[in-house]
Amino acid sequence: MSYRAPLRDLGFTLKHVLGLEDLQATGAYPDLDADVVDAVLEAAGQVSEGTLAPLNVSGDRAGSKLEGDGVIPAPGFGEAYRTFIEGGWMGLAAPTAHGGQGLPKALELAAFETVHSANMAFGLCPMLSLAAIEALEAHGTEAQKTTYLEKLISGEWTGAMVLTEPNAGSDLGALTATATPKGDGTYSLNGQKIYITWGDHDMTDNIVHMVLARLPDAPLGPKGISLFLAPKYLLNADGSRGERNAFRPVGVEHKLGIHASPTCVMAYEGATAELVGLPNEGLAHMFTMMNAARVAVGVEGVGIAERAYQNALAYATDRRQGRSVWTGEASAPILDHPDVRRTLSVMKARIAAGRAICLATGMAADLARSSADPDVARQWKGREDLLTPIAKAWSTDMGVEVASMGIQIHGGMGFIEETGAAQYYRDARIAPIYEGTNGIQAMDLVGRKLSQDGGASARLLIEEMKTVLTPLAALYDGKPVERMANALSAVEDATLWLLDRKAAEDGTADVLTAADAYLKLMGDVIGGWFLARGALAAQTLKANGEGDADWLDGRIALYEVYAANVLGHVSSRLAAIGQGGDLLLRMTPAVLAP
Amino acid sequence: MSYRAPLRDLGFTLKHVLGLEDLQATGAYPDLDADVVDAVLEAAGQVSEGTLAPLNVSGDRAGSKLEGDGVIPAPGFGEAYRTFIEGGWMGLAAPTAHGGQGLPKALELAAFETVHSANMAFGLCPMLSLAAIEALEAHGTEAQKTTYLEKLISGEWTGAMVLTEPNAGSDLGALTATATPKGDGTYSLNGQKIYITWGDHDMTDNIVHMVLARLPDAPLGPKGISLFLAPKYLLNADGSRGERNAFRPVGVEHKLGIHASPTCVMAYEGATAELVGLPNEGLAHMFTMMNAARVAVGVEGVGIAERAYQNALAYATDRRQGRSVWTGEASAPILDHPDVRRTLSVMKARIAAGRAICLATGMAADLARSSADPDVARQWKGREDLLTPIAKAWSTDMGVEVASMGIQIHGGMGFIEETGAAQYYRDARIAPIYEGTNGIQAMDLVGRKLSQDGGASARLLIEEMKTVLTPLAALYDGKPVERMANALSAVEDATLWLLDRKAAEDGTADVLTAADAYLKLMGDVIGGWFLARGALAAQTLKANGEGDADWLDGRIALYEVYAANVLGHVSSRLAAIGQGGDLLLRMTPAVLAP
Repeated sequence: MSYRAPLRDLGFTLKHVLGLEDLQATGAYPDLDADVVDAVLEAAGQVSEGTLAPLNVSGDRAGSKLEGDGVIPAPGFGEAYRTFIEGGWMGLAAPTAHGGQGLPKALELAAFETVHSANMAFGLCPMLSLAAIEALEAHGTEAQKTTYLEKLISGEWTGAMVLTEPNAGSDLGALTATATPKGDGTYSLNGQKIYITWGDHDMTDNIVHMVLARLPDAPLGPKGISLFLAPKYLLNADGSRGERNAFRPVGVEHKLGIHASPTCVMAYEGATAELVGLPNEGLAHMFTMMNAARVAVGVEGVGIAERAYQNALAYATDRRQGRSVWTGEASAPILDHPDVRRTLSVMKARIAAGRAICLATGMAADLARSSADPDVARQWKGREDLLTPIAKAWSTDMGVEVASMGIQIHGGMGFIEETGAAQYYRDARIAPIYEGTNGIQAMDLVGRKLSQDGGASARLLIEEMKTVLTPLAALYDGKPVERMANALSAVEDATLWLLDRKAAEDGTADVLTAADAYLKLMGDVIGGWFLARGALAAQTLKANGEGDADWLDGRIALYEVYAANVLGHVSSRLAAIGQGGDLLLRMTPAVLAP
Repeated sequence: MSYRAPLRDLGFTLKHVLGLEDLQATGAYPDLDADVVDAVLEAAGQVSEGTLAPLNVSGDRAGSKLEGDGVIPAPGFGEAYRTFIEGGWMGLAAPTAHGGQGLPKALELAAFETVHSANMAFGLCPMLSLAAIEALEAHGTEAQKTTYLEKLISGEWTGAMVLTEPNAGSDLGALTATATPKGDGTYSLNGQKIYITWGDHDMTDNIVHMVLARLPDAPLGPKGISLFLAPKYLLNADGSRGERNAFRPVGVEHKLGIHASPTCVMAYEGATAELVGLPNEGLAHMFTMMNAARVAVGVEGVGIAERAYQNALAYATDRRQGRSVWTGEASAPILDHPDVRRTLSVMKARIAAGRAICLATGMAADLARSSADPDVARQWKGREDLLTPIAKAWSTDMGVEVASMGIQIHGGMGFIEETGAAQYYRDARIAPIYEGTNGIQAMDLVGRKLSQDGGASARLLIEEMKTVLTPLAALYDGKPVERMANALSAVEDATLWLLDRKAAEDGTADVLTAADAYLKLMGDVIGGWFLARGALAAQTLKANGEGDADWLDGRIALYEVYAANVLGHVSSRLAAIGQGGDLLLRMTPAVLAP
């Protein structure tokens, strides 16, 4: 099944739902305009469609293999990687001072959505490099930037993020890998790490590992962790590639999906490393790049959902079965059966919502970074912080659910591996887990992001969302407006209740019990708000005679589909939000036992 | 991960939620009492835990293989099959006249839940035999029953259901396989069939294929299809095994899950067959057994969910990570984190609801068959018909969602195949598809079952459900009662609206658009009703000093968990139910295109 980059949807979201004006007004993106957006998306679509998508199935079948002390990627991946980096994709949003193009993160995310749609297992390799770039950019010395950052930005080398250990997953504070000073300014790294995505491969000359470990005598727990850099190959004084460093992959996991992405168990056995940033500040340094990594995973959820959607739409267009109630055709395409059309419409609406949430998060990060006025910058930072866990968790849950709907559209063929639908369902399942499980995201939202500014960011967002009601009432009659009004008042009630419980001495368990449902409620409603803004933008464009009127009418219908099929969830979310922690204490281990 | 049959939950559901009294009152089950129920469940648990569960992972890895013109099952399956049939499981609910034990279908379903939990790929083989047994029992001649039925009931032979063709899936009326009279009373079968579960294997001496095909000059469409029986090996006059019949597996599908269950492409090349039942009545004959097959698939959904739940509960009990807000323990079992406890509690509540729905459907079938008073029998038949699509679709959707939650509880380990969580997620995904996709179930519910008696069965069920409100108000304060009351009034509103739209000339598309959401609403609420009845039964048992008081308190909490986390969905379902078909017509192919 071939993939077609959704250029129209991506462009519409960036230009008309979110708008480029705020970004342009900062002056930080002198090259940015609608034409640049279109050109970047088109180029991304070309490499994703032409180079990456054709390797998706073969990569799944072949997988990456550990041979000796190195990982051999699936056939064709090395060549595809070289084609990919020629496009300059690693540097799209990187600083111009180090060879980047200095464009907004939001545009990079939009371009990478097509990469993840085309080949999610491949996409993880550049995605992890982007995380290493961000970490080095923020915390590296000038020498480290010159030596490593520019090679990562060009794509000549890749980066890997080395955090997890068997007993330190969600709780990184428990990690035990050590780094001992060697006396020459470098450190000797020891320990075993797991879940190291693209931790080894032969597609580039070198791989830059960003490793969390403890210095001797470091405090126990999260405040005793430092960040290190260890290249796979040490560098000679002239910068040429020297000896292999003392670390290696000792296992590649046998996984449900993303088979072509090697998930390595890595052993560090006296590996030479440099400190990045300040001693014992490793976790804090990681947090500075965590928002970016999390929204990038959200975009993976959107990407895999888009792919599953396109695959299912093609099947529903071709497959004929039964008489259509609409057309009367005896052996009609199944797209002409209401239940199938409804399923595809809901898939499309949810994808559009997730896409807007993720790109809005990226844009908030851009504005937080580039706004000259510190108050404005702080406001955008608050928006970025608030949206990040929602972008990550809501979009990746959506990815799994949409991939499952994609299988269902295929009927029996969906369960046969050859249609591809099953692969999307397998691949999609990792995104709710890594980069902080969605449960962790929900706890981050209610435990930190919601209250870090006394709830100001959430209140500001709610007030902004309310302003959609008046224009919406001019576009729609009745239900579509009511549903948004109800949804907004549910968000407001839930937010106030949570802030109140959070402030109460005995409220923590209630807040944590509510976390998942609150995140889902926020995602449902924020997504609906963006779709409503999209419908309003479509109406304006249509009134101005710009764009394809039929397609714009579709955006107006799309919000209605979303309102009828998703926004109605608010009351179920409220019931779950308010259930309280005490009920769960009655579900004792003895009660839970079979 | 070892499996433990949930004897307490199964027994409680049969004996206290549903009650044996109605079955006993028919006089059709003279042996039935609480001790028999316990003994049967315990024996089922033993074979499932001891014989079938240990082959689940190895069966998934090895799969079934096509070699030459035969399928070789995964290692150990043949021996396990022989152990299994020694228990007499194929005849539990079969008529005593042909070697069965004449116990209720509901008890058989409860026993088979443990089989599907233990090894879903294995469970399909006896499950398909049960379908063949039911078809032969209803439509076979005495000679066919003597020759084939008894061997199927003893398990000496297995049965296969041969329906689907590449262009005839959901629309069986389109099938083209032919059966030509040979002049000696037998027929020559020709055609290719797909998705034939356990269509071939070497575990038994013979396999009885029940095949849909067309007689010469049969009318086009669904009214020209007849049912045939073709054994893999023809029988000599003395009943001994003769020549191999002219059909064979020509392919085994490469599937997402249930790898050990061979899904065969079968070629019939002049195979010798007997007619079963009346010419051109094949589809109607199939429909008489379809309810049983559908609820059996619903039970698969419950079984795989139970297995995923147990696996996740064990992991959450062992895995330690982070400080518990409840216990203060620094490195607490993740079960002591509210979000994990909530997830497991919701899994358990949804499984209990699905289990009750499926067993209630089986019990309604038993009562429809065995009630002496024809009016009573008719009422139970209406209940069976109404519940069947809900049991099938709601429970299998639940199976997928609970399996996905099971992965999530494991964090990163859930994505690694070795924990088993990934296998449940893969295996579970077939159940919403086969035996009529869940979309077909929803259409069956709103298009046929709801209105076949003018809505009488639905109204009767709603009235019966309402009677729970008074005792519920004596057990709980506030929310748990309100939620059930709201849910019941939502079901009533939706049902009346659908009956009204169904009667309207232009209402068909609205009804079909609503189908999925209506089925989900019905399942949510009926499941909640059974959990409420369970809570009330638990209270009574506790008051009488019977049973384990802590466990019974757990049943009282379980309904509250369900009410807070599932019953709140009613308003979202209502919004989707009422959206109307016209909205979807605005989602044109041009709008849906990427």
